[in-house]
This record gives sequence, structure tokens and C-alpha cells, in this order.
Amino acid sequence: MNPITMTLQADPLLLSALREDLSSEDVTTNAVLPEAVPGAVDLLAKEDGVLAGLDVFLRVFQLLDPATTGHFSCRDGETVSAGQVLGTVRGDLRVLLSGERVALNYLQRMSGIATYTRSVVSLLAGTGIRLLDTRKTTPNMRIFEKYAVRVGGGANHRYNLSDGILLKDNHIAAAGSVREAVRRARAYAPFVHKIEVEAETLEMVDEAVAAGADIIMLDNMAPDTMREAVRRIAGRAETECSGNVTRERIAELASVGVDYISCGALTHSAPILDLSLKHLRPEAAEG
Amino acid sequence: MNPITMTLQADPLLLSALREDLSSEDVTTNAVLPEAVPGAVDLLAKEDGVLAGLDVFLRVFQLLDPATTGHFSCRDGETVSAGQVLGTVRGDLRVLLSGERVALNYLQRMSGIATYTRSVVSLLAGTGIRLLDTRKTTPNMRIFEKYAVRVGGGANHRYNLSDGILLKDNHIAAAGSVREAVRRARAYAPFVHKIEVEAETLEMVDEAVAAGADIIMLDNMAPDTMREAVRRIAGRAETECSGNVTRERIAELASVGVDYISCGALTHSAPILDLSLKHLRPEAAEG
Amino acid sequence: MNPITMTLQADPLLLSALREDLSSEDVTTNAVLPEAVPGAVDLLAKEDGVLAGLDVFLRVFQLLDPATTGHFSCRDGETVSAGQVLGTVRGDLRVLLSGERVALNYLQRMSGIATYTRSVVSLLAGTGIRLLDTRKTTPNMRIFEKYAVRVGGGANHRYNLSDGILLKDNHIAAAGSVREAVRRARAYAPFVHKIEVEAETLEMVDEAVAAGADIIMLDNMAPDTMREAVRRIAGRAETECSGNVTRERIAELASVGVDYISCGALTHSAPILDLSLKHLRPEAAEG
Amino acid sequence: MNPITMTLQADPLLLSALREDLSSEDVTTNAVLPEAVPGAVDLLAKEDGVLAGLDVFLRVFQLLDPATTGHFSCRDGETVSAGQVLGTVRGDLRVLLSGERVALNYLQRMSGIATYTRSVVSLLAGTGIRLLDTRKTTPNMRIFEKYAVRVGGGANHRYNLSDGILLKDNHIAAAGSVREAVRRARAYAPFVHKIEVEAETLEMVDEAVAAGADIIMLDNMAPDTMREAVRRIAGRAETECSGNVTRERIAELASVGVDYISCGALTHSAPILDLSLKHLRPEAAEG
Amino acid sequence: MNPITMTLQADPLLLSALREDLSSEDVTTNAVLPEAVPGAVDLLAKEDGVLAGLDVFLRVFQLLDPATTGHFSCRDGETVSAGQVLGTVRGDLRVLLSGERVALNYLQRMSGIATYTRSVVSLLAGTGIRLLDTRKTTPNMRIFEKYAVRVGGGANHRYNLSDGILLKDNHIAAAGSVREAVRRARAYAPFVHKIEVEAETLEMVDEAVAAGADIIMLDNMAPDTMREAVRRIAGRAETECSGNVTRERIAELASVGVDYISCGALTHSAPILDLSLKHLRPEAAEG
Amino acid sequence: MNPITMTLQADPLLLSALREDLSSEDVTTNAVLPEAVPGAVDLLAKEDGVLAGLDVFLRVFQLLDPATTGHFSCRDGETVSAGQVLGTVRGDLRVLLSGERVALNYLQRMSGIATYTRSVVSLLAGTGIRLLDTRKTTPNMRIFEKYAVRVGGGANHRYNLSDGILLKDNHIAAAGSVREAVRRARAYAPFVHKIEVEAETLEMVDEAVAAGADIIMLDNMAPDTMREAVRRIAGRAETECSGNVTRERIAELASVGVDYISCGALTHSAPILDLSLKHLRPEAAEG
Repeated sequence: MNPITMTLQADPLLLSALREDLSSEDVTTNAVLPEAVPGAVDLLAKEDGVLAGLDVFLRVFQLLDPATTGHFSCRDGETVSAGQVLGTVRGDLRVLLSGERVALNYLQRMSGIATYTRSVVSLLAGTGIRLLDTRKTTPNMRIFEKYAVRVGGGANHRYNLSDGILLKDNHIAAAGSVREAVRRARAYAPFVHKIEVEAETLEMVDEAVAAGADIIMLDNMAPDTMREAVRRIAGRAETECSGNVTRERIAELASVGVDYISCGALTHSAPILDLSLKHLRPEAAEG
Repeated sequence: MNPITMTLQADPLLLSALREDLSSEDVTTNAVLPEAVPGAVDLLAKEDGVLAGLDVFLRVFQLLDPATTGHFSCRDGETVSAGQVLGTVRGDLRVLLSGERVALNYLQRMSGIATYTRSVVSLLAGTGIRLLDTRKTTPNMRIFEKYAVRVGGGANHRYNLSDGILLKDNHIAAAGSVREAVRRARAYAPFVHKIEVEAETLEMVDEAVAAGADIIMLDNMAPDTMREAVRRIAGRAETECSGNVTRERIAELASVGVDYISCGALTHSAPILDLSLKHLRPEAAEG
Repeated sequence: MNPITMTLQADPLLLSALREDLSSEDVTTNAVLPEAVPGAVDLLAKEDGVLAGLDVFLRVFQLLDPATTGHFSCRDGETVSAGQVLGTVRGDLRVLLSGERVALNYLQRMSGIATYTRSVVSLLAGTGIRLLDTRKTTPNMRIFEKYAVRVGGGANHRYNLSDGILLKDNHIAAAGSVREAVRRARAYAPFVHKIEVEAETLEMVDEAVAAGADIIMLDNMAPDTMREAVRRIAGRAETECSGNVTRERIAELASVGVDYISCGALTHSAPILDLSLKHLRPEAAEG
Repeated sequence: MNPITMTLQADPLLLSALREDLSSEDVTTNAVLPEAVPGAVDLLAKEDGVLAGLDVFLRVFQLLDPATTGHFSCRDGETVSAGQVLGTVRGDLRVLLSGERVALNYLQRMSGIATYTRSVVSLLAGTGIRLLDTRKTTPNMRIFEKYAVRVGGGANHRYNLSDGILLKDNHIAAAGSVREAVRRARAYAPFVHKIEVEAETLEMVDEAVAAGADIIMLDNMAPDTMREAVRRIAGRAETECSGNVTRERIAELASVGVDYISCGALTHSAPILDLSLKHLRPEAAEG
Repeated sequence: MNPITMTLQADPLLLSALREDLSSEDVTTNAVLPEAVPGAVDLLAKEDGVLAGLDVFLRVFQLLDPATTGHFSCRDGETVSAGQVLGTVRGDLRVLLSGERVALNYLQRMSGIATYTRSVVSLLAGTGIRLLDTRKTTPNMRIFEKYAVRVGGGANHRYNLSDGILLKDNHIAAAGSVREAVRRARAYAPFVHKIEVEAETLEMVDEAVAAGADIIMLDNMAPDTMREAVRRIAGRAETECSGNVTRERIAELASVGVDYISCGALTHSAPILDLSLKHLRPEAAEG
Repeated sequence: MNPITMTLQADPLLLSALREDLSSEDVTTNAVLPEAVPGAVDLLAKEDGVLAGLDVFLRVFQLLDPATTGHFSCRDGETVSAGQVLGTVRGDLRVLLSGERVALNYLQRMSGIATYTRSVVSLLAGTGIRLLDTRKTTPNMRIFEKYAVRVGGGANHRYNLSDGILLKDNHIAAAGSVREAVRRARAYAPFVHKIEVEAETLEMVDEAVAAGADIIMLDNMAPDTMREAVRRIAGRAETECSGNVTRERIAELASVGVDYISCGALTHSAPILDLSLKHLRPEAAEG
């Protein structure tokens, strides 16, 4: 993860998560370890999967004590296997104990998303279709979850309501027509944004093309309808397939010829990847 | 959810989540709806499950505009069915559109956890065993996720590192012995906390009993070993079974006679419950 | 200004500005007015110009006391004349006194920007060219200043580094070529963003077109070079003229045929519009 | 700028400004520069003026990465000329690119204020009159703008409503008389503050002197009236000339014999000083 | 307490104090009271003293629930007696229970300070000497403690390091002489501040007068030395007696002729005034 | 104080306290010391007592400038004597001057509490009774005050409403009976918390024992009643004596046989321990 993003966006969230787990002090650790003890602990994979979030994982400990160091034998995006030792974190044992749970909670969830994304991406191999995430992320986790999708081989849809235009049925109804909705968006929004229109029927697809939409989202359409939509659009707009996309339906969807498939499950329903910290031990301090 | 908890703990997180999704403004909505339009939208279940988080869901909209109201035909903890209309939210259409995703992201995840918890709890029916959550929650979601576990029929383990004592192998190693670790914890920690000791072997169980532990966590033990542990403890401490607890293993674990079973998957791997907002429509304002 | 944007983005900044001006208490007002006194004060224009920011102006007082009300005889975007009474604010005199300076500091600056923008836009009337702002805004004032530009008739360039792609010479140098820079941007950035390339020479213009740039910024080019650039681009990308755009040069620039002209001075050098609060007076409370 | 002020007051505002420009991540830079690249960039003056804010400028980059360094050939308060290279910033190219705009936005505005202030101060040379700023600063910019005024040779009026007493007509009306207003202020306010009274007529001047005001502000008076006011005050209070002070009127005002002249335009209407970052280049890292 | 000060300065501290006492939820109250129950509780004095902080006390409850109301039979500054019922707070019983401790912690401390201040002020009755507080306040309590001193009849010295000038021996040493220190302060500080000089010897008193100090603090001087200092100053500066001021020494100090006596004990060592909430009871809701 | 607690819990409060004392800048110090001057200052005891808070004291300066160092000849918990030099702080003189008051305000209050606690603890020597603090702490000072109690030899009662169960008369009334209140608490609260019941009469003591309370608080009972209560409880619950505990009554209370005595005065009414910074001096910088 880019260190500027870490400093500006991630750090406040990591600190908030640490305070969630440490509202006054770690009474257990402070009871048994009144003084600093230099030591180390190993990061271990307990399942096969794709790793994502090592920088975030280490940063949690460094926010507790900047002197904490980490050395890892693998990088974000690499496949790991159950039983594999992935690296070692060194620092005050109290920091390793007090930060363990929060650090793992981030790493496990991010790796779970990367693992799930990779598995869906692999089903699209050779099709030229790009897999997209959605805004169905866990609150206050978006910067981490969208990063994990990229690590898993997916691409990001708009980050939030402020950086992309997506005219849904309700927006279109409010404007009166697709044409008017697109006109208003073009007049109002920063001109660097493309304009995407959600279409649920072929008629709406035709209107969206006529209105000059840059991207047309084919929402919850049957595969045959989507195929016809792509034919009508004929390259005049990019196409995105959306709605109830599951691993099971991917093969079928891959054949309809869209440019993008978006999938909420990448972030809202991927299980974690099981990882743990093991072999905590005191060590003579470095230097 | 208790309104004091909402005000003090939830609101700052909800606002942070809203700002995550609205870093400057909702350009699409603001482009097509320059002025307020009173309206309504329905909340719909798209899957069967247990609802949790209605107060949080509504609060997201009310943080955008306190005049937003919600009327629901069901309550947290009730079972809902695919296709069921669960209620209606009324307010400025712009608020309904701009708040939709964040409100649903909370409600779907909380309901997903309640649904999963309920399914595990039902497997323990009649055993007298209580199902516990863990600290393996999503960062900055703990107050919501622990609430959802209770809604689903589970009970909460300690909230965080500050409100419970759990002496793990590393703490015991640091103190030199179980006896010394318990002694230090008793001397240091607020006396209103019970002292829980994690035991991985029967020898550690014996030591924990001798040291006067209030609760003994039987960690990653084989069922027979756990059964023997419970026999040895003989009611002198409460017992908690922990480690790789899955729905599949619950039946087997239920027979070993522990008081509590804790399960990280409740919060780290439950998929969401699919819910959506439908039929957004302008309405004449009330009054 | 959209009330959701006000709540989520503006309020924290307004409160910060109020605390900047009131670090402990308003000692003068509190010395002479120990108790609440209902009253009113008039908003007066002291110069001709375009008004922008009335919602923000009123909100400053309402953050001090939600019971404060404002009634205005004009709206954002309207022209006002020196001497004109623009409306009245009613509430506790202490609120009117303590909030006056911060409220005016916002309104004067926003109106100054709208006034300046309007004057430049009028020079482009009939050309079809849209006037854009830049990121050369006052720190912590962007949401207000970009709004004021729109009120004045300008359009917004990207909001910030997160919602638009602009490949400058340094990015291109880092990537090795325009083609490679565009390729990387297309692979990395959310696909809802257009890709803009900054070109300082005709060669770079050619490369940008070949690389498939959506927008080409003609940076600091002589008018004739720009004219040639527009000719070569031939509608295959949108065109933006940038660099040292002043009111004086606008006429000349308007003739080169670009789609957009961006102008940093709108936000970094517009003088304020002089406004003041007058005729503060006690009044019997309403109701 | 004093480093304690920087840490306590400026840093939170700089971080807020950085997050305003980087709400999720710098998508352009992160697309083309996935890894750190050590490099440098030069700071260049594009206009003649007075420099102010170098510490703030550098701090912006250091908040993104503490390893960033700056070496400058001039200091705050020095005159710079168009074309002059003012120094070099070294660090990760991504930091230089992502921080550039915010750093310049501060430096340009602060230098613009210092330049404008210096030009007004020079008109008062030899008169013994001190030029003061006002509270007409840009919201959330006061600590920077008041510093820039000092760099330009001006002096600071009160910082905010909490650290100075200024009894305006409305306060006097509320108290019933100048005498009573001064009495209340003396009784209430910390005794380390002087008491300033705003006077719009010679009668009010007389009353203010009689009431024992420490400073009398001559507000919007004609030069001859001011001259008479100064004569009547006869050194029994300090005198401040205020209201529509412009560069054009300064010579006339300088002759009426006041101690201070305050000028809102210093902070509300000074144009920026044009500065830019040029010659960004990779460099082998130091050491 | 002024409602603007409450909103801008007090509220964030009250919320922080509430979160200190309620880091997740009030488990006891939430266990026994799952739903809202309207009710009331009485505020009772358990000692004689001076009340201060009723607005703050009530505000704590209102931050938890704005519907909470308070009716009090006495006001800040009034004397109360042990056993006296001071008023009633009405609202959701859960709010009354969860907010009780924080509300009382503020009210008891503020009233303790007002009580102690009143007792010292009474010893100065008839002398014309004003009693001042200091900056020896409890961290994050200054706005409340300085208010309580005023309620008790004392006056406030400077609020903090930013709103007053006090040249101590170390500042003078750094400047080289009293004269130079005063000169620098006059040149640098906002001109609305008086300049106070701390003097420990008669020589320093002479220098301070010569340098034009507005106020001279006679620090830790013997009474006779102070008397001589006052004689030498002869009205050319205000005088403040400081250092180890206790109730016991007040009579002696009152006779030396200074204008002000400052006393750190008002805020750093006053014991609380014992108050409690009694007779919590359910009540039918109003209206 | 544990460095993790310092980082997560103390630092934000220390920064808030520093900003309370430095709302814009230290005008006195900045006027006389425009540039950094390395130097030192000594910490001196002016009274006999128990020291507590050295880490916090030093941290205040380090938050202003991380280069500040401290060397102390004693540690928290040690007895100091009037006149004793306790150590030296080294750094930029401006940091030493600007941070002095806040650093001392913390250290003096924490040491005052430790001193008072030690004096009460010594009265319980040999009885086996542990002295407890309460939640009657100064708002936003709890983490510091509870630490100081431990340093003084006391033990901590629950930290706040979230980490302990204490069923008071009002909770019991709300539940209907002691039995029902305990049942609800056991069902709702995290099982790692003990359940404490407040009893004001012997009947309530009997009920609490019958309900299975883990701890029974004997509230405001006469010594003989307490003795009888302890006899009836007969070791089936821990016992805490509470209510109007003063140094004077301790001897009498010590004989009734309870396990714990809690005392609000430790934190709400201990006077500070007088300490000061002396001999500030410039020094050649180290290295």
C-alpha cells in the first residue's frame, strides 16, 4: 500500500481500531509484563490463499511503537500455503501482544478478499473481461478492501459517490429521461468523470447510447438480453454486467461479451484467510 | 441498539463511513436533484435470515438529515423471508439516495452475522452451552458486530483488551508459571474482572485450577482431552472451548460438557444477508 | 449548497473556523451581555457583485445556536449592488455578535470568487468554451471555493488528486512515454475516470492522441501552437487550455478553438466582495 | 514559524488540507510510480515579491514522509525575483508529486500576503505608524496569514475574540453607555487585556477617553475628523485608524497622527505570489 | 456558562469525558433496562458551599439525550446547605443512570472551586484587592475551572500562553535585560495585550517600571519588600502579589497595598463540594 | 506508564491540554526567543510526597519536540523531600518554557494523588484490606488518576461503566429484585465480568448472597452493621466497604473485616504535590 495513502487515510482508521480494542489499557499484558522485553513472533499461514495487507499488518504494530520491525518472505499478491511461515515481527513483547489481534484482523480480511477475488478472476482468464468491485464494502474498510481487490487481480469501480457518475433508475426518474439525466450530469459534474448509465431494459440501453453515455451498466439482465444489448451498443459505450454475480454464474456471464463484470461479493461476503502469530519469544535486542 | 451507545460510540463511526462514501459530494444526485424532493423508499429482504441493525440503518439517514423517518414492520432478531417488505424510509430523496449504500452496508453485515449466529446457536439448543463471539471482528465494526451476535442469540466474550483478563501461553511464559501469572493479574487488574487462563494441555488445566483461575479456556484440544479436562476441573472454574469452531464440528463439541463455546467465524466469516432499497418515489411531504 | 455536503464536509470546517476565532470565549460580548437578548441584524452589500454562500453564512450562526434564522431577499448567483440590504439574521444578539466575523469571512470570499468568475465567463459568452477552476484553492476552502466557481458560471475541473487522472510531464517521464503512462493509468485507475494528458509541445499532442487520451491539456502554449494542436487533435480528444490565463488574455485564447479554459486566478487571487452586518438591534422574540 | 506552533496549530490544518486534496489516493501518481523513487524538485519564483511560509511549505511534504528534506537559498521575509531558484526539495518522487499542490497553495498565499503587506508598510516608512492586520482572514488560515503579515513588516491586531477586548457600537448599545461598557469589560475580562473602544464620532471619542479606554479605534472617519480626534485624545489612549484602508488612501491617512492603521485587505484581498516546482528529477538517494 | 462557549469549547470535552466513562456501553444499565423508561432524579447537596456548573451538569445528560430536562431551585453562585434539594433532572432513566457520574464529577469540582474561592475572597472584603486565579488548572478543565473562579467571586488572570504576556526571569535572561525583554514583547505581541513583568527583587521592580511594564508581579517577596515595591512603583504600573498564597497568609498580604493577589490553590487544591443524585424514580412521561 | 497506553490514550489528552494552554502561540516566549536555544531546567520538589507521572511529565515536552530528553534521579512511587532535585529536562529553551505549565499540572496532580493514597494505604498496613479508587475522577484525567492510585499503593475498582457490573439500588428497583437484576446482568454482560451488588441493609446483603453476587458493596453502613454483613456473607462473596471513607474513619473501618475499602477522595479531593522547574539555563547542545 502506498505510504502516503497509509499516512493520510489508513493511519487514523488503524488508530481507531486499536483504541476499539484498547479502550484504557491491555490489563493482561500490563499485569504480567511491567517492563519492555525485546522479542519476536512469527506470522503463519493456516490456509492456502493470496496474501494482501502486509504493510497494514506491520503498521498496526508500528503505530504502537515505531521501533517495531517486520521481515517477510513473501509479498502482497503471492500465494501462500497452510503451514508456511510468512515472516517475523520484532519489538517489545508488549507491543506484539497488544497489537496482535488488530493486525491480524486487517490482514486476514484483506487476504480473504484477495483470495476470493483471485479465484473469480481466474474464471475470466482469456476472456478479456475485467472483474470490478463495488461500493458494497465494510464501513470504514474501503481503502483496505479496494486495495485487496487489486492485489487479487480485480479492478476498482468508482471509489465513492464523489469520484464517479452513475445514473440509476431513480436519478433518471428524477430528471425525467435518460437524455436529461445525462445532460444534467455533464453540466454539473467535473468533466474528468465518465458518465455511466444503469439500464435494466433494452429500451433504456438504446436511450443511454443516444444520450451519449460513456458506460452502460446492464443491471440484472438475462444473459441473452445482455448479449443483445452489447450488440446494439456496438462499441459506442463501454459495458458493465452487474447484479447477483456469483462464482457459479461467471462462466455464463463471460460469454455475453461485456467489457466489465462487477461483483459485490468480493468485499461483502469473502471469508477471511486464516493466519496466526506463533512462537512469540523474548530475544536479545538488536544492536 | 441502546441510544446512548448510538450517540457516543456508533455516531462517529457512521459519520466516518459516510465521509468515506462522500468525500466531497454525491455528484450524481446533486446533478439531477438540485432541490429537496420529499419521498420514500422501501426496505426489502432478498434472502431469508435474521434482521439486525435497524436502528443503525435508520440512523445513517438521520445523520444526513434528522427529519428522515423510518417505519418498520419487524424488529431486530426477527426472521425475514426473501421478498418481504420490511419497512419504509421517508425523507428528502437526495438523503435516501446518498445514504442508501452506507445504510445497507451496515444492515446487511449485521444481519448476516445475526443469521449465522442463529444457525449455530440452534445447533446447541438444549445443551445449556452458550455460544460466544471473539475479538476477531472487523476493525471499527466491533460495537455493531457484538450487538449482532447478541441479536442472533449468542453471548459476548470480553469486549476488548481492557475489560477482561485472558492469560495466554505467552503471558504465562512471561510470568514464569500459571500460578505467578494469575497472581500478577489478580494484583494488577481491576478486581471486578474474572481471570481466564488458556490451557492447551491437561497439565496446564491442572495448574490453572490450582492457581484459582475463574475460567479455563480449552484451546484447540481434541474432544476427548476436553472431556477429561472438564472432569478434572469439576466445577471449580467455568470452561470455554475455543479454536477452529465450525458449524460442522459443533455437534461433537457440544457433547464434551463445557459451559461456553467461542467461535470467531461468527464475526469474521459470516456472509452478508442480501437486502435492498426499492421503489424510491417522490411523495407529498407529511404535514 | 447541498445540505448533505454541508453536514458532512462543511460543518467540521465551519466549527474549526469558529474555534479559530473563539479559542476560549468572546470576552467582549460575554462581558456586556451576560444573558440572551433576542435581536436581528441586516446583511448589506457594500460593493456590486455576485452573491455566493448564503447557506454557509447562515449555517455559521446556526452552529452556534440552531434557533438562529435567516431571511434573504436574494439567492446565490444573483447580482447585488452596493448599498442593497440582502436580508436579516435573527437570534440571540450574542450569537449574532460572536459569529459575525466568521460568517462574513466565508460569504465575502465565496462571493468574491463568484464575482470574479462571472466576469471571466462573460468574456467567453457565445464561444461555447467552458471556464474551469483548478486545484489552486485556499487550503481547507476547496468545497466552498469550487461551489462559488459554479455559482459564478464556471465549471469544476477534478476535485482533487483522487477523482481525476492528469498525467503531467513528470508522470510521463516516470513511465517512460506517453503511451506507457496512459496504459498504466488505464490499468490502475477506477475505469470511470477519463484520462487527461498534459502536453507542452505538438509532438506530445500527437503522442497523447495516439495513446488514446480522453482529454489533452495544452499547457502554456502560444495561441498559434494551440490552434495547430486543436487542428491535429481533430475532435479525437477534448482540449483544455491552461497556464497563465488572465482576464486580459481571455479574448485571444477564446479564438483558438479549445473546449475548456482553466484559470487558477478564480480561486487564488479573486479579491473579496465587501459585505457587512449592520443595524444590530434587540427585538422581541418571535412567538 | 515557531516549531511548537507548527506542531500544535499548523499540523492538524495541513493534514486536513492534504486530505482535502487526497481523499483516497493520488491515482495518477500511484498508477505510474508503484515504488519509491528518490528524487528532487526545485522551487522557483515566477514573480517578484516577499517570501513567507517556507517552513510550512516543507512541512507539508514531511507530513507525507518525514524523510523529505529541503534546502533553501533564501528565508522568510527576503525579496525574491521572477526566475530565481529558491531551493530544492528532496525525497520520494511520489511525495514530491502528491504534496506539490498543497505545499504551493500555502506558500503562494502566505507570500502574496507578505508581499502586499510589505508594499503598504513601505508607504508608512518614516511616519512611526504601525500597520495592523484584522480578523478578516480566510477561515482556517489565520495562524498562517497573521504570520505572513508579520513577515511582511506588519503587526498583529488581536488574534481572535478570546484574546482582546474591542467594544463596538453594538456592545456599547447593549451596555447603555461607553462608560458602562468599559466598566463591564474591566470587571469581566482577564486584566492582562487592554480595552479598545470603537468610536465613530468625536463625541464617542470624548466618552471613550473619559471612560478610560486604553485604545480608541477611529472608525471610518474623515481625515480631518481623525486629526481632531487625535488632538482631543492627547496621548491619553493609543489610536487606531480603521475602515476602508487602501493603498491609495494610505498617504492621506498617514498624516493624521494615529499610532496604528489597520487594513483588512492585507489578508482578504492580496493576490498570491506566483511560485512553482520545476525540474522534478530522479536522483540517487543520499547516503 | 455562555451557550456559545458551551457549544464550541465545552461540548467536545464533555463528550470525551463521557466516552472515558462509557468506552463501549453501560453494561449494567443496559442489562436491566433494555427499553426507555421515563423518570426523574433529584440533585442534593451533602455539604454547605457555593454552587457552580449547573449548565454543564445538565448538558452532560443532554448530550446523551437532548430530550433530558432540568429544573433547579438555585443558580450558579448561590450558597447551598447540606441536605438541600437543588433541583430535578427528568428523562430516560438509562440516561440518568449512565450520565450521573460524569455530570456530578463536573459539578462537584466546579462547586468545590467556587466554594474555596468565595472563602478566600471574603478575607479580602473591603480591601479593594482582586483575587486572581492562575494557569495551575487541571488539564482539559480550564474553561470550567476559570468559570468556577468567577462564580466564586474571583477574577481571571490570562487564560493561557496565547492571550497574555508575562515576562518571567527566564524570558528576561534570554533577552538580556528587562528593558530589552519588554521592547521585544511590545514589538512582537498583539498590541491589545498588556505587558506584565515578574520581579523578585526591588532592583527588578525599578527596571520593570523604567521599561514601561503595564503590570508588575511581585513574586515570592516578603511583605515588607512588597510594601516597598508598591511605594516605588507609585501607581505607574498595576501590581500583583504571587507565590505561595494561602488562606492563612491572606490577611498579611492584604495590607501591603497591591492591586491583585493570585492564588494557584483555587484551582489545583480545592476539594470537591459533595453533591449527589437521589430518589431516582420512574415517572409518567410529560405530554 | 505503559508506552502503549501513553500513545493510544494519553497522547490525545496531552495534546488537547497543550492546545488549551497554547491556543495560537506562546507570545511571550516567541517574542524573546525567535530562534532555538539548547538548554536545560531542573525539576525540584517543594514538598515531601510520593512522585507519580514522570513519563507523562516528560511526554508533554516530547510532544512539542521529540528531541527533548529527561534524566531523573527517582522513579514513580518513590518518596521525595522538599528541596530535592529530581532530575533535569534538556531541549530547546522555547520547548521548556512553553511546555512547563502543562507538564507540571499533570505531575503535581498525579503526585498529589499518589501521596494521598500512600497515606491512606499506610493506615491499612497489616490488615490485608486493599484500598480501592472509584469513578469519582476528574473528567478526562481518569487514565492518569487511576495510574497514580496504583503508584500510591491502592488498587483500581472498575475503570468505567463498560468494564464492570455494579448493580445499585436503582438498577435493582428497575429489575424488580436483586435476584432478577443479577440474572439479567449474567445473561447480558460479557461473562468475564464479576457481578457486584450494592447493599444498604442486611436484608439486601442476604438477597445478594442468595442471588449469587460475586462482590457485595456495603454502602454507607454503620461499622457494626458491616461487621454483621461480613459474618453473614461468610466468604461466599467478596466484600467492599464504600461511602464517606475518610482518613479519619479508616481505623474504625479496618476492623470490620471487609476485603476492600473504596475511597473517592483519593481522586476527587487530594491536593497537589508542589513541584517546580528551576534553573532554566542555556547549554551547549549535546553531540
